[in-house]
Amino acid sequence: MNIQDIISKKRDKKELNKEEISYFIKNYTNGTITDYQAAALVMAIYINGMNKEEIKNLTLEMAYSGDVLDLSCLGKTVVDKHSTGGVGDKITIILAPIIAALGIPVAKMSGRGLGITGGTRDKLESIPGYKTEISDKEFIQNVKEIGISLIGQTANLAPADKKIYALRDSIACTESIPLIASSIMSKKIASGADKILIDVTYGSGAFMKTKKDAKRLANIITEIGNNVGKETVCILTNMNQPLGYAIGNILEIKEAVNCLKGNMPKDVKDVVLELGSYMIKLAGEGNNLEKNKQKIIEIINNGKAYNKFLELVEKQGGDISYIKDLNKFKNPKYIVPVISKKDFIIKSINAEKIGKLCVYLGAGRIKKGDEIDHSVGIVLNKKVGENVEKGEVLAYIYSNNEEKIEYCKKNVENIILNIE
Amino acid sequence: MNIQDIISKKRDKKELNKEEISYFIKNYTNGTITDYQAAALVMAIYINGMNKEEIKNLTLEMAYSGDVLDLSCLGKTVVDKHSTGGVGDKITIILAPIIAALGIPVAKMSGRGLGITGGTRDKLESIPGYKTEISDKEFIQNVKEIGISLIGQTANLAPADKKIYALRDSIACTESIPLIASSIMSKKIASGADKILIDVTYGSGAFMKTKKDAKRLANIITEIGNNVGKETVCILTNMNQPLGYAIGNILEIKEAVNCLKGNMPKDVKDVVLELGSYMIKLAGEGNNLEKNKQKIIEIINNGKAYNKFLELVEKQGGDISYIKDLNKFKNPKYIVPVISKKDFIIKSINAEKIGKLCVYLGAGRIKKGDEIDHSVGIVLNKKVGENVEKGEVLAYIYSNNEEKIEYCKKNVENIILNIE
Repeated sequence: MNIQDIISKKRDKKELNKEEISYFIKNYTNGTITDYQAAALVMAIYINGMNKEEIKNLTLEMAYSGDVLDLSCLGKTVVDKHSTGGVGDKITIILAPIIAALGIPVAKMSGRGLGITGGTRDKLESIPGYKTEISDKEFIQNVKEIGISLIGQTANLAPADKKIYALRDSIACTESIPLIASSIMSKKIASGADKILIDVTYGSGAFMKTKKDAKRLANIITEIGNNVGKETVCILTNMNQPLGYAIGNILEIKEAVNCLKGNMPKDVKDVVLELGSYMIKLAGEGNNLEKNKQKIIEIINNGKAYNKFLELVEKQGGDISYIKDLNKFKNPKYIVPVISKKDFIIKSINAEKIGKLCVYLGAGRIKKGDEIDHSVGIVLNKKVGENVEKGEVLAYIYSNNEEKIEYCKKNVENIILNIE
Repeated sequence: MNIQDIISKKRDKKELNKEEISYFIKNYTNGTITDYQAAALVMAIYINGMNKEEIKNLTLEMAYSGDVLDLSCLGKTVVDKHSTGGVGDKITIILAPIIAALGIPVAKMSGRGLGITGGTRDKLESIPGYKTEISDKEFIQNVKEIGISLIGQTANLAPADKKIYALRDSIACTESIPLIASSIMSKKIASGADKILIDVTYGSGAFMKTKKDAKRLANIITEIGNNVGKETVCILTNMNQPLGYAIGNILEIKEAVNCLKGNMPKDVKDVVLELGSYMIKLAGEGNNLEKNKQKIIEIINNGKAYNKFLELVEKQGGDISYIKDLNKFKNPKYIVPVISKKDFIIKSINAEKIGKLCVYLGAGRIKKGDEIDHSVGIVLNKKVGENVEKGEVLAYIYSNNEEKIEYCKKNVENIILNIE
C-alpha cells in the first residue's frame, strides 16, 4: 500500500476501504506521509466526498490515533455537548454548570476558536488564573470532587484530527460534511463520553450555510455515534444572527455569567433550554423535555447554577473575584458606540460579517497559533426584529486600536442596516 | 488576494483569472505559499480542470518564473522537439544530430526520467564524461560552433514548473492535461525556441492512455504555442509497446548509436522520419515532408548524422571512444535471457509493465532525486507481430542484483505472452 494509490482512488471518486484509511491516518500522524500528500487527499475528499462507511472508519481511526479517556470511574452516564460553532456562542459556559448543578457529571474538553467561530477554551482563558491545560488525572479528579471540569483538549487527544484540522484551515477545506463530522466525533469518542449531544448550527455564522446541509451533517453525526455505541442526538440551531449580544472572549464570559444569574437574552435561553433538556434526558435523569426545562429554570433561579460556575472557576485556578465583580475585567482602550442615523426595524444581523469584524479587532484567529486579544469584540445593543430610533445605540465596538474603530463602526452600521 | 480564496475558487470549479494564477505561481516559487497549499490547489485543478485561458496563463507564469533564454543570436530559426514521454523513447538522441547535420541549429534542454518514462538527460549522462550541466553561455556557444548542444535544464529554467512537477509526482497528479500541457510548454517557452514540435505519446507506456486524450492534449499544446507566437506542431505517437528494443540508459544509448549508423528498428525509424520531416519544415528548410524524409535517410546513410553525434559528445566533454566502440560501456553483473517455453505470435508487449520492471531493476526513479543505475534494463529480442518458437529468446534482463532476476524473467515472459 502507498499513499499515491490511496490519493488516486479518492481523486477518481472511488471508495477507500478501512485498511487504506487506517494507513493514511497512522502514517500521517507519525509523519511518514507529508502535509502536501495529506492536503491532496483532503482536497480530493472535499470535492469527491465520502460515503457513511468511509466516514465512520475515518472517525474511528482519528479517535484512536491518540489517548482515549476512560470516564467509567465516574460511575454515572457522562453526556458530552458540542457545538459546530457560531458567532457569540457561549452556550457551553452557561449550560455546563447548569447540568453539573443538577447532579449530572460534566467532563468536557473544548477547542480554541478559529476564523469567525469562537472557542470555549479561549473564553475560559480570559478569566485570570483559569487553567485549561491540566492532566487527565486532575481532570477526572475535579469531576469526581465537584461534578464538573471544563478544559482544553489534552495534547494527545485525537492527534490525527489536530493535524488534519489545522491543514484543512490553511487549504480552504473546512466546510466539508465528511471532514466536519469525523473531526467532531473523533474528539468526542476520544474524550470518553457515553452519550453525545451535538448542536449543529446553520446560517451565515456557521459552517453549514443552509438548514438542509445542517440536516445532512446531523444525520451523519448521529449515525456515526450510534454505530460506535455512543447514543448521539443532534439539535439544529439557527445561527443567522450572533447568539446573544456579546461577541468576544471577556465580553462573552460576562454575558454568560449574567445568564447564569438569570438574565438571559431570549435566543440564548431558547438554546440553553433546548440543549439542556436533551442532555438531562440522555443522562437518564428525565424523559420529559418540558419538565427538564423547568429543572433548568429552577436551578438558575435558586442560584445553584451560578454557584457551580464559581466552584468550577475556583477549582481550575481562576480568580472568582472577577466573576463576582464583572467590572474587574480589563476593558480595552476604546469602547465606542455605533449610533443609528435613522429610524428602522432590524431585518437581519449577518453573523458571519460580525464575526469577521471581531477577528479583525483581534478577538479571533486568522490562522492557528495566532495571538488573540481577550478584551476586544462587539456588543450588540439591538437584535433582529427590534425597532431602532435615530440616535439610539446599535452596538458598541471594543478595541485596543484606534485606527480600526472607524472601519468597524461603518461596517457594523451597514450590517445592521442590511446594506451590502 | 490570498491563497485560500484561490484554492476555494478552483475547489468550487470556478475559473481562475490571470492575477490569481500569477499570485499563486510567484508566491509558490518564492516559498510564501506552502507545498501543502499548492498540493490542494493542484488536486483541485486535477479534478475540476482548467479552461484554455487558464492553461495559457499558467504556462506563461511558469515560463517567466525564472530565466528565459534568448537564442536570437543564433541567427536562424531554432526548432525545439519534445516528447511527452514513453518507454524506450530515445528519439531525441537520434533525431537531434540528424537535424544538426542538416544545418538546422539544435539547442535543446532535456529532463531526467521519472517513473516509467526515461529521460534524455539520464541517457546522455551514461556516456562517461558527458556534461549535461553547463552555463547558458557555453550552451549557446556550442550551438554556434557545431550547430548542436543537448543539455539538462538549467537551474533557473521555469523553477515554478520544477516545484509543481515534483509535487504532482508525489500526490498522484501527473496525468492531468492542463498540468502536462503547461509544464511542457512553460519549459519550451523558457528554453527560447522559435518553433516547437511535440511528440504526444499515447498508449500503455505513456501518460495519455488513449488516442482521444492524446488528441485533447495535442490541441491544447498547439493552441498555447500559437497563442504565444511560437508555431507549434504536435505529432501523435503510439506507445503501446516500448519504442525500439532497448529500455535502460546505456542500453538505449547503444541502440541510438546503431540507429545513427543506419540500423533502425522499424518503429523507431517511423517516428524519426515523421518528427524529423516536420522539424525541417518548421525550420523553413523544406515544405515537402516526403522530400524531408529523404534528406534524413541520406544524412544517415552518408555518415554525417553519426559524425555530428560524435562531435556533440566530444564538445560536451564525453569520451567518444565509447561511442566508437560500444562494447566499452560497462555491462551489469548479470545479463540473462528470457526463453520462450512455447510457439506463439506476440500480440502485445505492455510498455507500462516493461517500464515498471526497468524501474524495479534500477534504471528509473520512483521519486525525484533517486539514484539510478545506468547499466541495467531490458532488451527485447522480439516485437509485436513476430513469430516466436519454443526455445527462442524473448528478451534479455540486464541486472546488478541477482535476486531481482527471477521476478523479472517471469514477468517479462507473462507480459510478452499477454498473461495478466
